[in-house]
Amino acid sequence: MPFSRRNVADAGDVGVNPFDIEAAIKTIESAATSLTSSGRTLLTLGGDHTIALPLLRVQHSLHGPVAVLHFDAHLDTWDSYFGAPYTHGTPFRRAAEEGLIDFDHSMHVGIRGPLYGGLDLEESARMGFSVIHCRDLLRHSIDDIIDRMRERLGQRPVYVSLDIDVLDPAFAPGTGTPEAGGMSSAQLLEILRGLEGLNVVGVDIVEVSPAYDHAEITGVAAAHVAYELLSVLPATS
Amino acid sequence: MPFSRRNVADAGDVGVNPFDIEAAIKTIESAATSLTSSGRTLLTLGGDHTIALPLLRVQHSLHGPVAVLHFDAHLDTWDSYFGAPYTHGTPFRRAAEEGLIDFDHSMHVGIRGPLYGGLDLEESARMGFSVIHCRDLLRHSIDDIIDRMRERLGQRPVYVSLDIDVLDPAFAPGTGTPEAGGMSSAQLLEILRGLEGLNVVGVDIVEVSPAYDHAEITGVAAAHVAYELLSVLPATS
Amino acid sequence: MPFSRRNVADAGDVGVNPFDIEAAIKTIESAATSLTSSGRTLLTLGGDHTIALPLLRVQHSLHGPVAVLHFDAHLDTWDSYFGAPYTHGTPFRRAAEEGLIDFDHSMHVGIRGPLYGGLDLEESARMGFSVIHCRDLLRHSIDDIIDRMRERLGQRPVYVSLDIDVLDPAFAPGTGTPEAGGMSSAQLLEILRGLEGLNVVGVDIVEVSPAYDHAEITGVAAAHVAYELLSVLPATS
Amino acid sequence: MPFSRRNVADAGDVGVNPFDIEAAIKTIESAATSLTSSGRTLLTLGGDHTIALPLLRVQHSLHGPVAVLHFDAHLDTWDSYFGAPYTHGTPFRRAAEEGLIDFDHSMHVGIRGPLYGGLDLEESARMGFSVIHCRDLLRHSIDDIIDRMRERLGQRPVYVSLDIDVLDPAFAPGTGTPEAGGMSSAQLLEILRGLEGLNVVGVDIVEVSPAYDHAEITGVAAAHVAYELLSVLPATS
Amino acid sequence: MPFSRRNVADAGDVGVNPFDIEAAIKTIESAATSLTSSGRTLLTLGGDHTIALPLLRVQHSLHGPVAVLHFDAHLDTWDSYFGAPYTHGTPFRRAAEEGLIDFDHSMHVGIRGPLYGGLDLEESARMGFSVIHCRDLLRHSIDDIIDRMRERLGQRPVYVSLDIDVLDPAFAPGTGTPEAGGMSSAQLLEILRGLEGLNVVGVDIVEVSPAYDHAEITGVAAAHVAYELLSVLPATS
Amino acid sequence: MPFSRRNVADAGDVGVNPFDIEAAIKTIESAATSLTSSGRTLLTLGGDHTIALPLLRVQHSLHGPVAVLHFDAHLDTWDSYFGAPYTHGTPFRRAAEEGLIDFDHSMHVGIRGPLYGGLDLEESARMGFSVIHCRDLLRHSIDDIIDRMRERLGQRPVYVSLDIDVLDPAFAPGTGTPEAGGMSSAQLLEILRGLEGLNVVGVDIVEVSPAYDHAEITGVAAAHVAYELLSVLPATS
Repeated sequence: MPFSRRNVADAGDVGVNPFDIEAAIKTIESAATSLTSSGRTLLTLGGDHTIALPLLRVQHSLHGPVAVLHFDAHLDTWDSYFGAPYTHGTPFRRAAEEGLIDFDHSMHVGIRGPLYGGLDLEESARMGFSVIHCRDLLRHSIDDIIDRMRERLGQRPVYVSLDIDVLDPAFAPGTGTPEAGGMSSAQLLEILRGLEGLNVVGVDIVEVSPAYDHAEITGVAAAHVAYELLSVLPATS
Repeated sequence: MPFSRRNVADAGDVGVNPFDIEAAIKTIESAATSLTSSGRTLLTLGGDHTIALPLLRVQHSLHGPVAVLHFDAHLDTWDSYFGAPYTHGTPFRRAAEEGLIDFDHSMHVGIRGPLYGGLDLEESARMGFSVIHCRDLLRHSIDDIIDRMRERLGQRPVYVSLDIDVLDPAFAPGTGTPEAGGMSSAQLLEILRGLEGLNVVGVDIVEVSPAYDHAEITGVAAAHVAYELLSVLPATS
Repeated sequence: MPFSRRNVADAGDVGVNPFDIEAAIKTIESAATSLTSSGRTLLTLGGDHTIALPLLRVQHSLHGPVAVLHFDAHLDTWDSYFGAPYTHGTPFRRAAEEGLIDFDHSMHVGIRGPLYGGLDLEESARMGFSVIHCRDLLRHSIDDIIDRMRERLGQRPVYVSLDIDVLDPAFAPGTGTPEAGGMSSAQLLEILRGLEGLNVVGVDIVEVSPAYDHAEITGVAAAHVAYELLSVLPATS
Repeated sequence: MPFSRRNVADAGDVGVNPFDIEAAIKTIESAATSLTSSGRTLLTLGGDHTIALPLLRVQHSLHGPVAVLHFDAHLDTWDSYFGAPYTHGTPFRRAAEEGLIDFDHSMHVGIRGPLYGGLDLEESARMGFSVIHCRDLLRHSIDDIIDRMRERLGQRPVYVSLDIDVLDPAFAPGTGTPEAGGMSSAQLLEILRGLEGLNVVGVDIVEVSPAYDHAEITGVAAAHVAYELLSVLPATS
Repeated sequence: MPFSRRNVADAGDVGVNPFDIEAAIKTIESAATSLTSSGRTLLTLGGDHTIALPLLRVQHSLHGPVAVLHFDAHLDTWDSYFGAPYTHGTPFRRAAEEGLIDFDHSMHVGIRGPLYGGLDLEESARMGFSVIHCRDLLRHSIDDIIDRMRERLGQRPVYVSLDIDVLDPAFAPGTGTPEAGGMSSAQLLEILRGLEGLNVVGVDIVEVSPAYDHAEITGVAAAHVAYELLSVLPATS
Repeated sequence: MPFSRRNVADAGDVGVNPFDIEAAIKTIESAATSLTSSGRTLLTLGGDHTIALPLLRVQHSLHGPVAVLHFDAHLDTWDSYFGAPYTHGTPFRRAAEEGLIDFDHSMHVGIRGPLYGGLDLEESARMGFSVIHCRDLLRHSIDDIIDRMRERLGQRPVYVSLDIDVLDPAFAPGTGTPEAGGMSSAQLLEILRGLEGLNVVGVDIVEVSPAYDHAEITGVAAAHVAYELLSVLPATS
């Protein structure tokens, strides 16, 4: 007779199941709701890009649809990724369906590299994202880039979602889907300084993966990204 | 009006969802059934320890309950892991419930380190596993260890499931849950040579994780483990 | 009596002698001839820069003298290297002597760093190579660089030979003779995109050395270089 | 009775105490005085930035107050660092107090990143240093930067003190206080070439820390920095 | 007129001077006194071996002279190290002079490798330390080693001072003075388990240096050392 | 007309061609002859195992056929390697043919792992080498191993040739052909100490490859091997 499952207490049942992405999304949404309830602004360190979805839900509950400023090598607007709807490749598609994003004022910055499907760019544009491609940085001055970004965001509540792979692998090797041809940290930090005076209501920095890092190159870059983003958050009363 | 999900083709739907463990178990079971259908013996390289479950199902369909020779720092016999029933910490519990294991002839080799729950060892013993603890190697000769193993396995069909973390982190740093105090590769390879002449019907080598490896130490060790296990497989007609 | 060599079969004689560079050159030439015989275009991954010589011989047999677009920190036009004529520092000197190169349309891109001899630049120029020095990228726009390159190559059959050390060691540490002050991957990839519409007849990417790489920085860059070069190859019938 | 210290010969007393920074400063000053006594120019490899102080003392004894061209992410002009007056964060404050620096012709190049105190920039300016901030490189041409540097230094005896962390961590991870957003090695080397024809009387390259380096990225960059600086030293008779 | 030091506030004066070892010794002694004042047992993670001196002072104030069980490749009983009396090579000499150690019950375990002076072993023995040399592990069973250790320590209050370099560099590369020929982690952990039931009053684990570590091999070993030592601490009321 | 080779001075002809193994063998033989001419004993650091051949020639010229004590995972007695007669896999075959080895007193220690040909062990035995296999260390005491070695070598002039891959990859990852299941450094160093009093006339330590090393594990092990071997060299007058 085979060993019976119900005879044995569940020794391993010590918390949330880390294999259950949808449960993690709920936990993050609940914790972020609680943390922001007293008016605090949240800078969240990932983890993978899936966390942007629950964080955008919380921003929406506070501000209505928000302008999303999305730094990334990739669009992250697929409908599904390997057939799964809630993954690090789909947060902005889900957020779009849920009405969380103000598409008159949202943009991708740093997009580059191979696409996964022929309609990727078209679908992202149909949702309403404008794009500063990474190669634009080779042909436009840093102040032109900053001006385009500020014009797009306007006076709306801005949510900054920054995937560290927006940097070139030389500046951030410790990440899951590195793409050559990216920004330098000097460029990225200066663009972030260009947010000063805008209405930034929330920030995430995602896809830093220490196990893939060497010589702490990625960690140092991410820490400075966080520092500059903290510096442009509005003072809270 | 929010962006509608059904208006957009699913550009990312390019195969099996890697986030769905149960779908992966089915894929492995189906592929292994096909590969063994003509009498071939399977040596499988992981991936994590979850793969032992579908592979044991296939062995059971060919041989009935098999003697499991399990090399690991950990028991992998929990009922669930963070609440999930199908994970790399539970394959032998599931296999026990499904009647796949011949518990009169099965054993763990290399167990050591902190336990997760007070009943872990007791539950494993109640299922029927005997144990050669890693510290036994400090007090018994290598031939005594081999003799205990051979007596336990007898003439039964033997399935060898080898988690690379049975080695000390010095010999296999590239793995997900390293535990100090493990075997040397000299000890492990000699024990594997001790399987000669037994009826080994299948083998898996799991939990090798190149991203955590340095100087290919883990990869070299795993390759030699595979070499020795291939050498003790019975010649097939 | 000393042990006699002729009494023993040659157990190790399992293929080409890897210490014999000239034998390797012949093997490559023969294989490339065979692979291109049906009209296919060859993108070759090194290995060191020596392979450019047999590959240029094959291109010459197909197209006559070809325009060579050579990305590298170094000229690779020495007469010999440590006294040897066939090495990774001499392929373009040998190719010049053999008449394989159309010097009215060939150029080096990315040259920088210390020279080995006082006449290096002069000799390369006397052969007929024009040069875009790496420091030119600090003073000219990316489109100026692309225009100079396209004007030089014209409508000739173009062979692209790309040594990964054209990138700065930050972007490609895994190579044998790194030179600081190199291109960024963003610059290199954009210049490669500038080849669109030209008549590229063959490509090599050389001097990627995984043992010296860390965090796969070099491997990621080289893979993207290959991707962009594949994208500018003419469609073949 | 406790073991008595005076009964035992001092087996370890084999040279200078490496824990005594002030003794090391004296040793360096004495050695540098001796080395330069016959008119030789000194290029010194650190070690940490503390060594700039004794080296400036020697320069002052030869030339009077010198123009300091200081490449660094940090000002290194604190009064003390963790309470200690002689450290790698304070050499230029000590040198200022000792009258070693010609402040009408001295400048920092590459300054960026978080400050330690609210008055850091102000104090450095009050001493007399002018500054080319690292972000200036994003808005000015390389020739503008070189022109500003040359105008400031004029015809004075110039001492170049170069902390490798003036480079971005992608180009120099092997250092003690990396700051993201730094120069590329292409930019730094070109600026150094811009020193040609000036009266460079001494050079140090400091804060290269091999234990923190990976893939020799930092070592390669530092070697090229040394090469370019050697190339701009005046020929000595 | 040179810049005056006294005109400027000390921006960097934010705490203890890390270059001043004797100040650090005082800080540690004071903090350990405070932490143990309510009867708690201290397991301290280094930092270098210098910390054993202030920690032994605190143990002495609580228990009088203690039995020191010292795991290390080195004796650490020099009178001075590069001329300095308070360093990671001298803590037990200073502790001996201060009467902190009960030499009838103290021992070194794991000693090996080159000596610095011809009298090193003799002086250590004259102080009163007995020694289990690392090579003894090749000729005696693990239970013989444990028995010798337990007989030596007896029922005295035992202070365990464990330098991670007692392990071979394969098991602990991340340390300052690695010596080949060391213990395996399996041997060390088993010896530590042999302390069960003795009167362990304090523990330090020192010389773990993450910057020199790879693949977290050293960190994993040190964490298991801490786990086993926590397991043999007496329960406190 | 193609560029003519003879018009250009050979800028790269700065010394011995490193691609020419036979020239290197001659250089080594000549230098070793010179260095030993005044009675000095040579400890040589490789470099690959090819260097044993010219070094044995020099030993033979001084002492006649010598007893070879060869530590290695591999036999290195092939007739050729990839068709080449002079390589790191063949030095002892060439030395045997040249009559350099006293086969009544020579042995391999540490042999293990896959063979390249079915006759490898047989041919080595036919030459006259006896073998202590690496797995013998699991079943015999260290003193038994030392006794067998000493009996074999007797009072003959002994040449020790030590390939660092005799150690397990955990203890020496930085080498070209690592084989799992090797010695620990504790075992190797103790066996080397067992040479005390024998007539050791020369030593090489080969196959240390820093580019493949991590955390200097291999370098540390090799340095201690050198230390122990220096300690057993006879005092020279």
